[in-house]
Amino acid sequence: MATGKFIVFEGIDGAGKTTQMDLLARLLRERGMQVLCTREPGGTGIGARLREILLDPACRNLDHRTEAFLYAADRAQHVHEKILPALHRGETVLCDRYCYSTLAYQGWGRGMDMEFIAGLNELASGGLAPDMVVLLDIEVEGGLARVLGRHLPDRLEGEKLAFFRQVRRGYLEQAAKQPELFRVVRADVSVQEVHRRVLAAVAEVLGLAE
Amino acid sequence: MATGKFIVFEGIDGAGKTTQMDLLARLLRERGMQVLCTREPGGTGIGARLREILLDPACRNLDHRTEAFLYAADRAQHVHEKILPALHRGETVLCDRYCYSTLAYQGWGRGMDMEFIAGLNELASGGLAPDMVVLLDIEVEGGLARVLGRHLPDRLEGEKLAFFRQVRRGYLEQAAKQPELFRVVRADVSVQEVHRRVLAAVAEVLGLAE
Repeated sequence: MATGKFIVFEGIDGAGKTTQMDLLARLLRERGMQVLCTREPGGTGIGARLREILLDPACRNLDHRTEAFLYAADRAQHVHEKILPALHRGETVLCDRYCYSTLAYQGWGRGMDMEFIAGLNELASGGLAPDMVVLLDIEVEGGLARVLGRHLPDRLEGEKLAFFRQVRRGYLEQAAKQPELFRVVRADVSVQEVHRRVLAAVAEVLGLAE
Repeated sequence: MATGKFIVFEGIDGAGKTTQMDLLARLLRERGMQVLCTREPGGTGIGARLREILLDPACRNLDHRTEAFLYAADRAQHVHEKILPALHRGETVLCDRYCYSTLAYQGWGRGMDMEFIAGLNELASGGLAPDMVVLLDIEVEGGLARVLGRHLPDRLEGEKLAFFRQVRRGYLEQAAKQPELFRVVRADVSVQEVHRRVLAAVAEVLGLAE
């Protein structure tokens, strides 16, 4: 049924996903393609309401499973309301984070049961898998430095650094297990060089002339 | 680990669940038992926030799957924050609606995929099953008449009546498939007579002297 291509960008905070999605979208639009750029969580009106709950300090006692269901609700609505209709219109969909983030952050990062997360992902996505996942891979220190400025605050050292190392490991293990789906792009070089690598990664699936 | 008993009350709207739970709770407390009376959805602070979204007219385009995930989030939080701690304290937990409502209303009533609902229930409950489900069974017309007054409004005839008939059928089929778990109590008699039947149903599992 779906005719458009669905490309997901993944990576830890600071890997450059937003920048690279914008550069790719601009190039695709210049070539006359219809492109939807979107993100999880919060890609829909309901998703924005759920995001409020997820970030509300009054909801501190949110159980990890409850949180996982709220991300799943956001994903189900996003797939139904935005991604599938765009694919059915033949558009190219570029999405900042998808199921792989949930596995990396909640599974590897927080140590939640992987089967639980994978089961929830399957139900939330309705089985919709992307045509390709572009994993922008960067050292944890490099990514966080981009987000936070040159010096890492003390509070991020130790525990939080270990958390993001686990998340990065989660991404790399997923990529190693599904080499046909993932393209790992080293993102510790200039924006333009990363852009060239991203283009090379997606050229075939998007039918771009080299 | 858990030592308290967990009893779920199910049935269509108007079957008398709240009334019967209250009567049973009062009797158990008179015998010196610690009892938690609770309900889904909305049994926790976060559940109340989710209930707002579920009922907000601005969220009319809520996908059925999104709605199912929000009920699951409510259930996960409820089990984690209220039900399991009470059971671990040795209390008797009486709960108005649980997984069986989701199957009856969203599966049988709305025609959603049963495996999806069952999978979600399993994840949301963390596998916590009650010791007994008391199904208060009543004719759809009788239940709705109790809720709405003697005369059914026109808008409820036809489509809505058919919906509730499907829900009732869903409950009865679940009960037929799990006779060791369910006790079906006919609820079209006086409150006191239904109370006597409920007592007879739960006497053994709660260790009540006849």
